[in-house]
Amino acid sequence: MVRAAVCGTEGRQFESVPVYQKMTKEKKIKPSKELPSGFEDRQEKELLIRDFVISNIKEVMIKYGFQYLETPSFEYTDSIGKFLPDKDRPGEGVFSFKDENKWLSLRYDLTAPLARYVAKNFNEISKPFKRYQLGTVWRNEKPGPGRYREFLQFDADFVGTKNLMADAELCAMIKEVLIKCGLVEKDFTIKFSSRKILEGLLDRYEIRTKERRLKVLRSLDKVDRLGWEEVKKLLGPGREDESGDFTKGADLTKDVIDDLQSQLKYENKETFTYDEWEKDGDAYKDVQKLKENFDLYGLKNIKFDPTIIRGLEYYTGPIFEVNLNFDVKNIKGETIQFGSIGGGGRYDNLVSNFGNLDYPSTGISIGIDRLVYALMQKKDFDIKPLRPVVICVFDNFKIKEYFKLLKFLRESNISSEIYPGEGKLKKQMEYANKIESPCVIFYGDDEIKKGEVKLRNLKTGEELSVKNENLVNEIKKFI
Amino acid sequence: MVRAAVCGTEGRQFESVPVYQKMTKEKKIKPSKELPSGFEDRQEKELLIRDFVISNIKEVMIKYGFQYLETPSFEYTDSIGKFLPDKDRPGEGVFSFKDENKWLSLRYDLTAPLARYVAKNFNEISKPFKRYQLGTVWRNEKPGPGRYREFLQFDADFVGTKNLMADAELCAMIKEVLIKCGLVEKDFTIKFSSRKILEGLLDRYEIRTKERRLKVLRSLDKVDRLGWEEVKKLLGPGREDESGDFTKGADLTKDVIDDLQSQLKYENKETFTYDEWEKDGDAYKDVQKLKENFDLYGLKNIKFDPTIIRGLEYYTGPIFEVNLNFDVKNIKGETIQFGSIGGGGRYDNLVSNFGNLDYPSTGISIGIDRLVYALMQKKDFDIKPLRPVVICVFDNFKIKEYFKLLKFLRESNISSEIYPGEGKLKKQMEYANKIESPCVIFYGDDEIKKGEVKLRNLKTGEELSVKNENLVNEIKKFI
Repeated sequence: MVRAAVCGTEGRQFESVPVYQKMTKEKKIKPSKELPSGFEDRQEKELLIRDFVISNIKEVMIKYGFQYLETPSFEYTDSIGKFLPDKDRPGEGVFSFKDENKWLSLRYDLTAPLARYVAKNFNEISKPFKRYQLGTVWRNEKPGPGRYREFLQFDADFVGTKNLMADAELCAMIKEVLIKCGLVEKDFTIKFSSRKILEGLLDRYEIRTKERRLKVLRSLDKVDRLGWEEVKKLLGPGREDESGDFTKGADLTKDVIDDLQSQLKYENKETFTYDEWEKDGDAYKDVQKLKENFDLYGLKNIKFDPTIIRGLEYYTGPIFEVNLNFDVKNIKGETIQFGSIGGGGRYDNLVSNFGNLDYPSTGISIGIDRLVYALMQKKDFDIKPLRPVVICVFDNFKIKEYFKLLKFLRESNISSEIYPGEGKLKKQMEYANKIESPCVIFYGDDEIKKGEVKLRNLKTGEELSVKNENLVNEIKKFI
Repeated sequence: MVRAAVCGTEGRQFESVPVYQKMTKEKKIKPSKELPSGFEDRQEKELLIRDFVISNIKEVMIKYGFQYLETPSFEYTDSIGKFLPDKDRPGEGVFSFKDENKWLSLRYDLTAPLARYVAKNFNEISKPFKRYQLGTVWRNEKPGPGRYREFLQFDADFVGTKNLMADAELCAMIKEVLIKCGLVEKDFTIKFSSRKILEGLLDRYEIRTKERRLKVLRSLDKVDRLGWEEVKKLLGPGREDESGDFTKGADLTKDVIDDLQSQLKYENKETFTYDEWEKDGDAYKDVQKLKENFDLYGLKNIKFDPTIIRGLEYYTGPIFEVNLNFDVKNIKGETIQFGSIGGGGRYDNLVSNFGNLDYPSTGISIGIDRLVYALMQKKDFDIKPLRPVVICVFDNFKIKEYFKLLKFLRESNISSEIYPGEGKLKKQMEYANKIESPCVIFYGDDEIKKGEVKLRNLKTGEELSVKNENLVNEIKKFI
């Protein structure tokens, strides 16, 4: 025997322990079963509703003539910049790695990678270029309840056009997606404004350095979450959060802060006269042109609201926010302040950052997970997972008969399986109940002889004998 | 005026420069347009074929009774362990971050997170538990041409059953997926073996420490890529790669290495008698039982092949590999050694690693990107993106008419758009050609009066006048 010659251990047998098992015995580590905060497992019902949302999005995207594109999760850190709202908080922002000589980051949105894609491929793409993308983005937020660090986003963008028809089309398109997903117009409102309003105010207050302008922007973006009193601290000397971390403020004077608040506390006045910023003609023109274009698209539930800020710093003009108008509850059943499910805006200078490229652009995003979470709470909205019919195993000598039946059912497109474990009938029934199978099949000697099966409806407990030729129709009644 | 009072700058106007633009002016950074190696942008055609593959997978999964589940991208590093083939190479393996006190890693497969999920939720899930997942996995490989660091994977697993019917069902299911995707049986072969064969050999050679067993396993897994001559170095004293990096070897003697090679060089002998490992009864029983079960599923293009290794260390029994039998070419048109598009196996001890949990399991994966890459090369396989009909803009005063037409076309489910840029007709035609629009619509004064439009087919150049009521049908002829 070859082996004996090699090892000199003829006749000796060693216990065969798999490599993996050996390792655990040696190390005795017991790893964590938990997930890091900000990350979640997702169950079938949520995933099916998500698929439904995604397939609606794709249909609308084709109808509107957007191209499907995908950029990877990682980019060079310098390619996507650091335009995040929370960059000023220590240890937050993006997930980054040192890779040989350069830093890589997981994308924090789909817009910055799009700008990189356009800069790389400007010779190949059309101008304008309309593309959509679905993809996960990551934010290395400070962990905490309800703060997610991974989101699935849908983005649609027009790249290379100043035409504000594009901005309006994005809002019309979002409306169509939401309606297709089962919402009605009163369920949501799209709000719009222009980043130029805030830029104009900052100029008037003589806030000139990039750093302070960003601090004001990011502070104002937190009004929804923290409220004005806390944001005022951020606009002033600084703020200590619940954990004791101190964030330095923008150092505005009390007068400026009070004025900013009064400007931005504007709400729901259709007669807003633009007095406060009309001298900044561009902002005025943006809003007027958008209103005209929304009319062309027949958009009704859209509302001008200058309190919209949008935290990302790259916006230069029109900005949008999509809000739901129905109650959303948290896991404890409490109604929560749900905030927006999406938004976007115009970013005319992002691509030119890569060189001498003129690609004024605009885009909109939907937070798919947030939309799905809200849809799951609409009473009139339901998608049920299909569960397999379970063929019970009585007798392993009959296994060929079970397989014939399985083949027939699957060829008839019935979700079905032979009980996949090793337990007796009691365990098999427990299994079928646990997976919420619509019915189990008993297929014993008697039934095989008679060319029929016994079906047990697991909801009602009812049993009936069914001829093989009627089986598919009978099962369909239970599903 | 409020502003004047606050700022003391009455009458003075500052240039309004967006925050973002300011930043670039100050910093003058010019970021990279390139992608880090191992990451790729994906175009529409590939994505559409991928969607087709994914929708086929989902249909088969429902039919086979698997539940849809999703775990997040990140896990605690200790939860998913380090079972990667390349762990012994410095700086390779997983992407990890320090997060407060613990390390997080991006998942390198979908199996280790599933084991964590099962350990966390064992009270809620059925036993057995059949689930499938689609998701990106990341490997922090040494960058190089054709080595990707991000893959989309499909996994299906049976958790909590020793029944080898499960292993066979996974292979039957993969076959059904591939056939649904347009392959025929001769296009692919599923190979199977048992990890117990190698374990038995290692025992006989008296290779007992975990470290050396893993080194042998990982070295053998590289035969496909490096060839036997290089792998022999890895099995012996060690190997220097092209870049000069040295990997320490498993230090086997020449005799053992030669014997291993002769055992594993076995190919295509249907009459293989198991002499070499028959004393290790479990391996023999695995293979026999699998053969019986494959017969029950009517699986034909499946082949026992003991040379299969599968690099992941957690396998304990049956292992599978799915190979394509048709030529696949690289970007230069050269036929390449494509390797497997998927595989898997039984991992009976992975869940018990989390505590006293008995969940013998088996699973299979398909590398979706690889499958799609291969499918794109099948001559008889084609999916065309739908491109929008472009309504040309002659006169902005007619914009309301254009919008009426657009509304009508979109409501008729025709992919369509009004030219989204700002250029004259020449630019509009360039745009329409670039996006490969099937036809453009001219809708001028004359046409509006007559209740018709002029259609230009962009492939043939042909123009025709069409009454509005026939428009949808005429366009459909062009698509």
